[in-house]
Amino acid sequence: MNIRVAIDCMGGDHGPSVTVPAACTFLEQHREASLILVGLEEQIRPHLPGGRESDRLRIVHATQVVEMHEAPALALKNKKDSSMRVALNLVKEGEADASVSAGNTGALMATSRFVLKMLPGIDRPAICPQLPTFHGHTYMLDLGANVDCLPEHLLQFGIMGAMMAAALDHKDNPSVGLLNIGEEDIKGNEVVKAAAELLAASDLNFIGNVEGDGIFKGEADVVVCDGFVGNVALKAAEGVAQMLGRGIKEEFGRNLLTKLAAVIAWPVLSHFKRRIDHRQYNGALLLGLRGISVKSHGSADRFAFGKAVERAYEAASNRVVERIAQRMASMHPQPVTDEGTP
Amino acid sequence: MNIRVAIDCMGGDHGPSVTVPAACTFLEQHREASLILVGLEEQIRPHLPGGRESDRLRIVHATQVVEMHEAPALALKNKKDSSMRVALNLVKEGEADASVSAGNTGALMATSRFVLKMLPGIDRPAICPQLPTFHGHTYMLDLGANVDCLPEHLLQFGIMGAMMAAALDHKDNPSVGLLNIGEEDIKGNEVVKAAAELLAASDLNFIGNVEGDGIFKGEADVVVCDGFVGNVALKAAEGVAQMLGRGIKEEFGRNLLTKLAAVIAWPVLSHFKRRIDHRQYNGALLLGLRGISVKSHGSADRFAFGKAVERAYEAASNRVVERIAQRMASMHPQPVTDEGTP
Repeated sequence: MNIRVAIDCMGGDHGPSVTVPAACTFLEQHREASLILVGLEEQIRPHLPGGRESDRLRIVHATQVVEMHEAPALALKNKKDSSMRVALNLVKEGEADASVSAGNTGALMATSRFVLKMLPGIDRPAICPQLPTFHGHTYMLDLGANVDCLPEHLLQFGIMGAMMAAALDHKDNPSVGLLNIGEEDIKGNEVVKAAAELLAASDLNFIGNVEGDGIFKGEADVVVCDGFVGNVALKAAEGVAQMLGRGIKEEFGRNLLTKLAAVIAWPVLSHFKRRIDHRQYNGALLLGLRGISVKSHGSADRFAFGKAVERAYEAASNRVVERIAQRMASMHPQPVTDEGTP
Repeated sequence: MNIRVAIDCMGGDHGPSVTVPAACTFLEQHREASLILVGLEEQIRPHLPGGRESDRLRIVHATQVVEMHEAPALALKNKKDSSMRVALNLVKEGEADASVSAGNTGALMATSRFVLKMLPGIDRPAICPQLPTFHGHTYMLDLGANVDCLPEHLLQFGIMGAMMAAALDHKDNPSVGLLNIGEEDIKGNEVVKAAAELLAASDLNFIGNVEGDGIFKGEADVVVCDGFVGNVALKAAEGVAQMLGRGIKEEFGRNLLTKLAAVIAWPVLSHFKRRIDHRQYNGALLLGLRGISVKSHGSADRFAFGKAVERAYEAASNRVVERIAQRMASMHPQPVTDEGTP
C-alpha cells in the first residue's frame, strides 16, 4: 500500500532546513511511502540531495507562508496559497493520505477544520498526542484545541481516542479513562461528572477516573480531558522533567569527583535519555476531521519532525479516520428504509 | 515568641506511630515551640519518650477518629470529639496558634471551615502547598479544594498566595501568575480570561499567564488556578517524576556493568534525590480561614510529617492569617465616618 504524505515544509521554527532533510530520511526508511513537499520551491530544492525530485518525492509550490504568530483567522482569510493550506488541500482532493505541519497551532487547527471539515457526529477537533507511560504509551486528548468543553465533547474525545488506540496499537477494546481529581467526595467539576455518566453509558471500555499521575502510570489506553486541563497537565509534566534533567546535570557537574562519576554513569544515563526522549513522541493528530492532519512541535529538529511524519504515515496506513467515521456512524444510525424514511 | 501547634495525632495512614515521634523530633529542633498532641491518649502515650508530657508537650484526649474515607459531612455531624476537630477547636479558642492533620482532606476542609470560619472577603478556602522550582520554590493554589471557581475566587487566591509568599519568604511584592495555556489566540477559558482582568486591575504584582512548565521554572512566586486544574497538574508532575525515577533505577539495574556504574554514581544520585525529595514539601496550608490549618499527606512518614509541623510553625510565626486579613481589609474598606455612614 502506497501512503502519500503531504508536508508543509515552511512551518516551524526552522522551516525547510529541518523539514526537507527529515522528509528525505523518512523516505529512505519507508519504502512504501511517497512524499509531497509543499512550500516555496526555491527554498525547498536546495535541501534535496542533488536538488532532484523522484517518483516518490515531488515538490508542490505554494507562494505563501503562515507566520508562527499570525492570527488564525487572518491566515485563513489572507493566505489561501500558504504551504499549510495547500498541503491540506492535497489531502482533501485525495492527492495525499495525510499532511504534517510544524506551523502555528491555531492556524493549523482553523485551516484543517476549514479545508477537511468535521466528521459527522463530531463537534470539534481535538489534539491527540501519544505520551510515554511506565511501560508503554497512552493517548491523551484534548491537548489544547478546546478550552471550554461540554460533556458531549468529552464523550466524542473518548470515542476518537479509543479508535486511535484500536487502529495504531491493534487493541480490540482499548480502555478509556476520564482525567479527574481524587480529593474529597465532590469528585470533579460539573462537566466532568456529566461526562463520566455519558462515558459509562456508552459502549466504550470506560474504566472511570484517572488522576494526573495515572496518565503516566498507564492506567488507561486513552485519557480524556478538556483542552485547558490537558495542556496544563502536559506542560507541567514537561516542566518537571526538565527540572529533574537539569538537576541531575548540576549534581554531576558539582566537583571533580562527581564529574568522574558522570563519566562512568554516562552510558547508562544517555541510554535512559534516549529512552525517554520526548522527541520520539512528537506529532499529535488533530482528530475528528475528514482527513489526517498532524501537528509537529514548532521547535522540532530533524529527528522529531521525522517522528511526526511517521505518525501521519501510521495513522493513514491504519485508517484512523475511517475507523472513527465508522464508529460514529454506528452510534448515529441513519438507515434508509424501503419507504425512504429514517 | 512561643508558638503552639496542635497536632491531630490520629490522622494519616500510620497514626500515632508516625505523628508522635515526628512531633518529638520537631520539638527538639524548635526551642521556641510547644506542641499539643490530640487524640486517643492510650495510643499516643506509648510513643512518647518515657511516656511523659512536659511543659512544652501535652496530650489532649479526644475520643473519636475521622476515618480516611469517611464522608466529610458525616464526620462533621457525627464526630464532634474527633482528634481533627479538637485540634482545630484549640486554634479557635486561642489555645494553639496552628493545627496540623494528615487526615481525610475533605473532612479537614469541611471541619476547618466550620470551626475556624472564613476571613472577611474570602469566599472559599484554598489548598496552598509550596512546590520546588529550578532555583527555589513557588506557592500554588488552589490544589483541589475548589473544582468550580469564579474569577473572583481566583483573585482571592492571588491575594492569599501573595500574602503567603510575603510572610514566609519576606518578599515585598511577590509576583503572581495565572495558570493558563499558550495555544492559539484564544488563550484560556472564560473564567481564566475574566480572572486575568481582575488580577491586572488589582494592586498585586500580576505578571500575567504562566503555562504548566512555568510553574517549575519558577516564573512566578505564586501561581493561581482552580482546584481541578491545580490538582491534575500537580499529580501529573508527580507521575512524571516517579516515572523518571523508576526509569533511572531500571537503567542502572540492567546488567553487571550498569550496576557497577550505579555504585559509583550512587553518592551523586542520592544527593540529588535528597535535594528533590518531595517529602520536604509536605504540608499545605488551607488558606482563607481565621486560623492556621495545615494538611499533611496521608502517607507521610516521620520526616514528611515533621515538615508539615514546621510549615504550620512557620506560618504562625510569620502571621500569615493576619497578613491576609489586613490585605483583605485594605481592599474592602469599611470606614465609619463621623456621621456613622460608610
